[in-house]
Amino acid sequence: MTMMNNHYGELKASYLFRTIDAKVAAFREAHPGVRLLRLGIGDVTQPLAPAVIDALHAAVADQAAPDTFRGYMPEIGADFLKEAIAGYYGSRGVALDPAEIFVSSGASDDLGDVLDIFARGITVALIEPAYPAYLDANIMAGNRIVHVEATPEDAFAPLPPADLAADVAYICSPNNPTGAVFSREKLAAWVAWARAAGAIIIFDAAYEAFVQDEGIPHSIFEIPGAAECAIEVCSLSKTAGFTGTRCGWTVVPKALFRDQMSVHAMWVRNRTTKTNGISYILQRGAAAVFTPEGRAQTAAAIDVYRENARVLTEALDTCGVWYCGGKNAPYVWLRVPGTSDSWAFFDRLLNEIHVVGTPGVGFGTNGEGYFRLTAFGSPADTAEAASRLRALLGNR
Amino acid sequence: MTMMNNHYGELKASYLFRTIDAKVAAFREAHPGVRLLRLGIGDVTQPLAPAVIDALHAAVADQAAPDTFRGYMPEIGADFLKEAIAGYYGSRGVALDPAEIFVSSGASDDLGDVLDIFARGITVALIEPAYPAYLDANIMAGNRIVHVEATPEDAFAPLPPADLAADVAYICSPNNPTGAVFSREKLAAWVAWARAAGAIIIFDAAYEAFVQDEGIPHSIFEIPGAAECAIEVCSLSKTAGFTGTRCGWTVVPKALFRDQMSVHAMWVRNRTTKTNGISYILQRGAAAVFTPEGRAQTAAAIDVYRENARVLTEALDTCGVWYCGGKNAPYVWLRVPGTSDSWAFFDRLLNEIHVVGTPGVGFGTNGEGYFRLTAFGSPADTAEAASRLRALLGNR
Repeated sequence: MTMMNNHYGELKASYLFRTIDAKVAAFREAHPGVRLLRLGIGDVTQPLAPAVIDALHAAVADQAAPDTFRGYMPEIGADFLKEAIAGYYGSRGVALDPAEIFVSSGASDDLGDVLDIFARGITVALIEPAYPAYLDANIMAGNRIVHVEATPEDAFAPLPPADLAADVAYICSPNNPTGAVFSREKLAAWVAWARAAGAIIIFDAAYEAFVQDEGIPHSIFEIPGAAECAIEVCSLSKTAGFTGTRCGWTVVPKALFRDQMSVHAMWVRNRTTKTNGISYILQRGAAAVFTPEGRAQTAAAIDVYRENARVLTEALDTCGVWYCGGKNAPYVWLRVPGTSDSWAFFDRLLNEIHVVGTPGVGFGTNGEGYFRLTAFGSPADTAEAASRLRALLGNR
Repeated sequence: MTMMNNHYGELKASYLFRTIDAKVAAFREAHPGVRLLRLGIGDVTQPLAPAVIDALHAAVADQAAPDTFRGYMPEIGADFLKEAIAGYYGSRGVALDPAEIFVSSGASDDLGDVLDIFARGITVALIEPAYPAYLDANIMAGNRIVHVEATPEDAFAPLPPADLAADVAYICSPNNPTGAVFSREKLAAWVAWARAAGAIIIFDAAYEAFVQDEGIPHSIFEIPGAAECAIEVCSLSKTAGFTGTRCGWTVVPKALFRDQMSVHAMWVRNRTTKTNGISYILQRGAAAVFTPEGRAQTAAAIDVYRENARVLTEALDTCGVWYCGGKNAPYVWLRVPGTSDSWAFFDRLLNEIHVVGTPGVGFGTNGEGYFRLTAFGSPADTAEAASRLRALLGNR
């Protein structure tokens, strides 16, 4: 018997961003004077909102004086933040008990950790192309993966296949990497599947703030019955520029039971055993996102990214390039013109117009032939990249 | 087959702090005017050091402007902090590659998460009395627990039993809850055992800043050969008052291999999959702990707790009560006088002198008959508690 988790040996090397980094480094060495326009990694560029900055400074000041100093926080989150998040859901008609909200260090942290409350070797459905960490975290857990292919025919937001047998299904909407969104009807079909199958949906809502259309849910809990079959993971990373500041939350409804166990109680026990909570300072900053000023200011930052997405998709429209996303999402997922090799297109953009994107094949084999651009760059860089894309692709 | 982790059903309800809370609440209701002196939970009371506060404010300000704004941090920690931590180890003669240091949200976060890189069902040795989360995290992982009993005869710091067969052993020195410390010789015996057995020691160094005696290691890596058999988990919670601010680190040496796998590479892969790193703001604050000003200021706060420990142990000395800890540790572990029931002693202190401590039995059955007091209270409360202990226990 081995003492280490030998499923780690089944992981593929994470070539995607490493290969991008290597290609970019080689280009820079060969062309030292050339500035690259980076629309690759989904990292934000707008600074934190003034209301958040003020709250962070105030919380730091609290930690400087004995009378206001805060030690251990509740492991599952401070009441002031859980109530603010519950209010945010309430403003969209989703009634949550604040005790159902678990403050986290961010979506990526909980998307992997939540597997701890599941048995090992369960069957997990991934809609591909997918965020690579879903796959890797499940390989580490020794789970069996069922691939559900997203295609242009379903606008990269598939319904559950009729024969889908799985214990868990991950859904990310708005989607990373495709920018696809799941309509109310599609999510209702997934909820119906999960309830019938006794499965649990892990809903990744990290990009919900980009949803504009009324018909597109921000939360799986907008779907009746979801509280009996879903866990939602969300984050302020993209909503409020917290990629480097770190705060998010996970909703585990009290109505969610499997194997005669309260999944909510299991997650409470997990968190109270395996964390000592999230920084008081960060939780104060996060709560400020949900104040009227915070909401207005963070919306303004998102508008900057929305305009970037519009500029990018307008260029692709002009060039007759097929894409999805970019409307209710910060990602634009385009069909590579002139080749079916997404790495060849990466090289072409890098070498000919000095734009860095992400090859679709990095998100799963059925991402081959596609390419991801992000709207998180600066407006000037994004406009320049759009202009160069028009020049490069306009004469097809 | 179940889809949930049914090992959660094997966890005992976490009565300890819940029962304390319930007893304290009942007392408060019955005696609304009485102020309690709380020497129970190991939470700090001194505010953050001025150097840390300044660094936190500066980092918050960085997040307010586009030119200094920081997005995603490296998942395993910012170079500036890893180098500062490596320098701290270096100042004690322990040479670490900064790449062996993984910045974390704190020791408790990594003590549970690190089990992910081990197989399920391994055998884990716990030295008891023990921090309850060691046990619970291993029950969740389906591991087999071997109890190594600490006793007054070995000053609550036992050597590895001759017949100990385990894949992993947890050692906490200075110890929570007993305040016991493992000498260089004792740790060398544990390292020799681990190397011979092919086991891994998980060394919890969260209280290392309290070590004063030259002969007591702060780090397992002061022991030759430990880099081939140990992982160290540490934290700024007690060193620098970060219980509510959150930052720590884990050292996984590059020399550590098991089952032909690099344990270091496994933890890199775990972190890059399951986290997006620690807040830039917190990492800047943490790095300030290791500046000359930060070290002097945090040492001054620790001196406050050391003096508290001295005041408590002096009172116990006067009363002839046996204890360990309190010298190189913030915890005082005393043999309950006049009864072998640690909950009865809890009730007595609460009702007669309004002091709240922690019954030893909450840390394992062989903690029965003992009681934990912490040195983390305010100096005034601690002095008053010591005075009341003298009055209560002095006439034995």
